[in-house]
Amino acid sequence: MSRISSSGDHTVHEYINRNVETDNMHPAILRSEIEARPMRPRSFVPNSLPLKNTATPRGYTPSPINGEISNSKYPASKIEVIKNWSVSTYKCTKQLINEKLGKSSKTVDIELETEIEQLRETQKKYGNILKLAKNMAAQFQCFIQTQQSLGEAFAELSQKSPELQQEFIQNSETQKSLSKNGESLLNSLNFFVSSVNTLCNKTIEDTLITIKQYECSRIEYDAYRSDLEMLAQMPRNESNIDRVDDAQQNYQHHKEEFEKLRSDVIVKLKFLDENRVKVMHKQLLMFHNATIAYFSNNHQALESSLKQFNIKPKSPTTPSLAASWLEK
Amino acid sequence: MSRISSSGDHTVHEYINRNVETDNMHPAILRSEIEARPMRPRSFVPNSLPLKNTATPRGYTPSPINGEISNSKYPASKIEVIKNWSVSTYKCTKQLINEKLGKSSKTVDIELETEIEQLRETQKKYGNILKLAKNMAAQFQCFIQTQQSLGEAFAELSQKSPELQQEFIQNSETQKSLSKNGESLLNSLNFFVSSVNTLCNKTIEDTLITIKQYECSRIEYDAYRSDLEMLAQMPRNESNIDRVDDAQQNYQHHKEEFEKLRSDVIVKLKFLDENRVKVMHKQLLMFHNATIAYFSNNHQALESSLKQFNIKPKSPTTPSLAASWLEK
Repeated sequence: MSRISSSGDHTVHEYINRNVETDNMHPAILRSEIEARPMRPRSFVPNSLPLKNTATPRGYTPSPINGEISNSKYPASKIEVIKNWSVSTYKCTKQLINEKLGKSSKTVDIELETEIEQLRETQKKYGNILKLAKNMAAQFQCFIQTQQSLGEAFAELSQKSPELQQEFIQNSETQKSLSKNGESLLNSLNFFVSSVNTLCNKTIEDTLITIKQYECSRIEYDAYRSDLEMLAQMPRNESNIDRVDDAQQNYQHHKEEFEKLRSDVIVKLKFLDENRVKVMHKQLLMFHNATIAYFSNNHQALESSLKQFNIKPKSPTTPSLAASWLEK
Repeated sequence: MSRISSSGDHTVHEYINRNVETDNMHPAILRSEIEARPMRPRSFVPNSLPLKNTATPRGYTPSPINGEISNSKYPASKIEVIKNWSVSTYKCTKQLINEKLGKSSKTVDIELETEIEQLRETQKKYGNILKLAKNMAAQFQCFIQTQQSLGEAFAELSQKSPELQQEFIQNSETQKSLSKNGESLLNSLNFFVSSVNTLCNKTIEDTLITIKQYECSRIEYDAYRSDLEMLAQMPRNESNIDRVDDAQQNYQHHKEEFEKLRSDVIVKLKFLDENRVKVMHKQLLMFHNATIAYFSNNHQALESSLKQFNIKPKSPTTPSLAASWLEK
């Protein structure tokens, strides 16, 4: 399943004395530094442990009283919740710092990490496609509106200019027809934008939330594992036998939590990938077909317009034909 | 050639006492009120007599010392120029006010006035076409730039997504080809914009400047004609015999000036009309041909792209085909 990375020799205090600033650093930043992973954009909140009203961390399914297994039969008071949250946060931060210093081992699933990294990359790339398609739809909408206005302006002039009537009517009908056919392409563009938006910002995002929870649970699991390992190395006596039992319980609980989330992530990634390929296949095909339909319809409309006006269509043999007409 | 309209009974002083504000009114505004002609936009300077450094009116070929025929053999001093300009301006303003009050006759050439009105209307309408074509060119430029970027983004994804490689390549090549062909249409649009701009803001504008000069000379001519008529009605005696002679000279001079400008306007209008029809015929044909070439080239490019990818092209029988694909 996963492998444990190496540990170092320094103490936490040594590290804190040397690097006071890192106390306030986000765990994700520390982690990203450890793994030399490329940074994600700032607007994105990664595997964090932020406060929600000084209570439970967001996007994280807590153990009974947030981290520590409680023996109390009574519901935990607010102060106890804060205390336990603080202990858990301290342990996680310590674990991250130790990982950074190479003093503590780290559970790593290379295959899964690679898949997660690929997913983040895919979201970024699809986000770029989405942005461009949105721009394109907006620009095309303005363009067909101008075509419509120009068509109307030409029509008005055709009525007032008998000497240029045919030329104005011809251009008016062309622009109006292009504008009308453009609406179908615009609908397709908007449908593409809407579908890619759902895929990118809802479907992929949902899996990324589970991934964030999985990443939090990995840190917690490693923190309680380190705790247990440390206690296990100490000589067993009456004073620490209870602490070892507690640590064993906490470790077991966080291990189950971590494995559950790991399996959730694997399942979600599989389904997401199938869904993504299906959605994108359909959307890319639709996008291409809509483009072809737009040019085919316009080509047909223009050809019939040429017949109507008895104009012999010039064969567009070279792509720069329009430019060559300029010189005539 | 032209006919003289009726005159009224009020004096200038009566009018000035009642309508102090009109003293500062632009002659063109007064004139346009007289004729109940639709007002032109404010940015346009009509048949005016504006000052240029307190010297000669702009766009107006003056008589030797601006209005009055000078008997002096020496070059007129600055004060004399100002004095003569003031006399001329006073006479013209008085003439305009009298025309407004129906007290003075007005030389009107209905046919020419109609042609001038039509030219102003044409300039306005072509200005609208120009504005729309400019917008269209700008929007289309943005659109093809986005197509190019989208083509590149699709190409990048095609390399990183083996499962959707064909779909991405297909769309990438389509967008890149459309963007490339779009440049020809953009060139044609820009050429259309440039030609209509020259026609609208240079060729037509040049004739309109002559028309403004003609309209100024018409007011001056009528002012000196009214002067002469007034003097002719007075009993002839020694004290006014010189004044009648001067008035006769001034009248003759302004009559010649007016007739010269009138004939200039007629000639310019004729040539302008021929030129306008020729330019617009060529431009409208080029615009239409460029549009056809764009859609034909794209149609061909898309068809060959379909062959390359062994896709059977769907026949676009209905204009709303692209929309119908959305439901599939």
